Amino acid sequence: MKVNGKHFRTIWVDKDNPEIIKIIDQRHLPHEFIIEELKTVTDFATAIKEMHVRGAGLIGATAGFAMYCAAISSPENNFSTSINNAARKLIKTRPTATNLAWAVNRQLKAMAEVESREEKIKKAFTTAKQTADEDASFCRRIGEHGLEIIKEISKRKKGEPVNILTHCNAGWLAFVDYGSATAPIYAAHNSGIKVHVWVDETRPWLQGAGLTCWELGGEKVPHTLISDNTGGHLMQHGMVDMVITGTDRTTYTGDVANKIGTYLKALAASDNNIPFYVALPSSTFDWRINDGLKEIPIEERSADEVLYIKGLSSQNKLEKISICPAGTRAANFAFDVTPARLITGLITERGIVKADKDAILSLYPEYR
Amino acid sequence: MKVNGKHFRTIWVDKDNPEIIKIIDQRHLPHEFIIEELKTVTDFATAIKEMHVRGAGLIGATAGFAMYCAAISSPENNFSTSINNAARKLIKTRPTATNLAWAVNRQLKAMAEVESREEKIKKAFTTAKQTADEDASFCRRIGEHGLEIIKEISKRKKGEPVNILTHCNAGWLAFVDYGSATAPIYAAHNSGIKVHVWVDETRPWLQGAGLTCWELGGEKVPHTLISDNTGGHLMQHGMVDMVITGTDRTTYTGDVANKIGTYLKALAASDNNIPFYVALPSSTFDWRINDGLKEIPIEERSADEVLYIKGLSSQNKLEKISICPAGTRAANFAFDVTPARLITGLITERGIVKADKDAILSLYPEYR
Repeated sequence: MKVNGKHFRTIWVDKDNPEIIKIIDQRHLPHEFIIEELKTVTDFATAIKEMHVRGAGLIGATAGFAMYCAAISSPENNFSTSINNAARKLIKTRPTATNLAWAVNRQLKAMAEVESREEKIKKAFTTAKQTADEDASFCRRIGEHGLEIIKEISKRKKGEPVNILTHCNAGWLAFVDYGSATAPIYAAHNSGIKVHVWVDETRPWLQGAGLTCWELGGEKVPHTLISDNTGGHLMQHGMVDMVITGTDRTTYTGDVANKIGTYLKALAASDNNIPFYVALPSSTFDWRINDGLKEIPIEERSADEVLYIKGLSSQNKLEKISICPAGTRAANFAFDVTPARLITGLITERGIVKADKDAILSLYPEYR
Repeated sequence: MKVNGKHFRTIWVDKDNPEIIKIIDQRHLPHEFIIEELKTVTDFATAIKEMHVRGAGLIGATAGFAMYCAAISSPENNFSTSINNAARKLIKTRPTATNLAWAVNRQLKAMAEVESREEKIKKAFTTAKQTADEDASFCRRIGEHGLEIIKEISKRKKGEPVNILTHCNAGWLAFVDYGSATAPIYAAHNSGIKVHVWVDETRPWLQGAGLTCWELGGEKVPHTLISDNTGGHLMQHGMVDMVITGTDRTTYTGDVANKIGTYLKALAASDNNIPFYVALPSSTFDWRINDGLKEIPIEERSADEVLYIKGLSSQNKLEKISICPAGTRAANFAFDVTPARLITGLITERGIVKADKDAILSLYPEYR
């Protein structure tokens, strides 16, 4: 998508040196646009763990390239041990995101198909690129399917703006391109349908305020920033026509682990009869577990992310400020699980499906 | 309650000059403890509007003293017009808080009972003090009634800590003393029951992070700060035993207008069968309206409160930082309404009552 009018993806191969992978270091957005080069497995692991990159699809794509980088740096005589160590190291970085293990395992499987170190490196490169390209193409198709829902609401509202609430950033910055939750919004906006997005700021990391506002601004989609507390009130007063969020892991039974606070918005949508959609490429499904609440591990991050907030000071300097008395204890659960019963539908690259086992497995029969 | 071991109320009459009213300027908490002198009606109106003081009971108490100040400054020949102008000016400052109009009208009624300017001033002074003292005493009694609920849970948990979630600040800082939501917590803590409080940070103004953490710390009540997104997850996982919030206006039918986001926590409590209590002195009831969602006016405050966050920088300086791209639009609704059906009970100075018309009017038969 566009940054100051120029097209970018969130991750790409350096055009001069294919052993260097480039990313947008998202920690500095929206205040600075910094491109970072990743060269070692440690670079990649840090970038994922410390959230230089984040979001379901982008974590997967980054993990894919990380495994290619691991292959490059693994010596002939110790290749398999070295690669498996890298795989373990990477999978540990973020426990909730399912795309991470999915992309790593895809690479292990792909490399196992060929013999020599050289072939394995080549295979890892094409698989990494394929994983990234697939993510972009799946998101584009999510946009096409989701567009139909927005079209319908727009027609019912006789062309009045369709008000869509989103939580966190499931935009192109969370994927390789287009985004999941934002793909239908961009598709609608680009086809001339009037949309307006309520952007949850999404504490503690403020991905909504920092990233979603930034990318909607880049595409000139009308939007309004709100505190995470606000969505319920808006829904009670008819100011929200639909909710679309992303997901970091979705069980094949339709439970959705997404950014902490998603569950609260799903409850409010349900209480006010507002459609609540979750958009995801199929790489985000977890085909092994059926009870999201009991089985999806929820990442706990540093208390500092709650105790301190980063932003731009009046002197145009990035500052970290404390919002509470010194010595305050904080807890920082990064995700929550929204049970399938609260979800109107899942928007996937293959179409829109009810959040239940039979419907999901009908759309993805290969996982039966 | 205690500030560094010394007892304070939130508002008091200067001991040397009874025409000067003192408050804690809460905008600077928790980073600085600043006492402000209020001398003119404009001082009072600014202090209420700009949230030097805030919270249901304290707004009422401040309005009471503001009317006393208005009486002092009203000339003999124009007393009634001057007083009524002050009343109108004060009532306009915060549209949602019901204690504001209640306290102002109480003063108008009290002053109407006597004849001379001198008597009216004297009457206004005693009424202001009475309003403040009553608030403190009502909150103390709320504590006694709420204590019984906490005792019961503590017994069921065999003395394990009772985990109480609260939103915003309905502590002693929001009243004259003790607080509403915090009164039962302080009562339990002081009677040796183990409690632990989950404190919602409460964006945009961060009253939870700044004020509730500060006052719980002052009384040494164990507590953990969380982002507003977190409560649902905690409730899903059995980490919350009860919720207690305050309220800025409660209809006689049991609907509760409180800090934005309260409704989301009430939905989550209901979805997880967790008791959700609202604590209030009867001054917070609105006896005229029966549909909170349709009839309670919801204050919209400046977008800047969403776009910027204030806190202490690493150089120990108070800084205001921007959290989103320049030019972002924001909306800032200060309250939402939680429908009576989601509320387990109201803890009042007269006892605990179901959030419904018949129950409330049985406890307050004088308002039938």
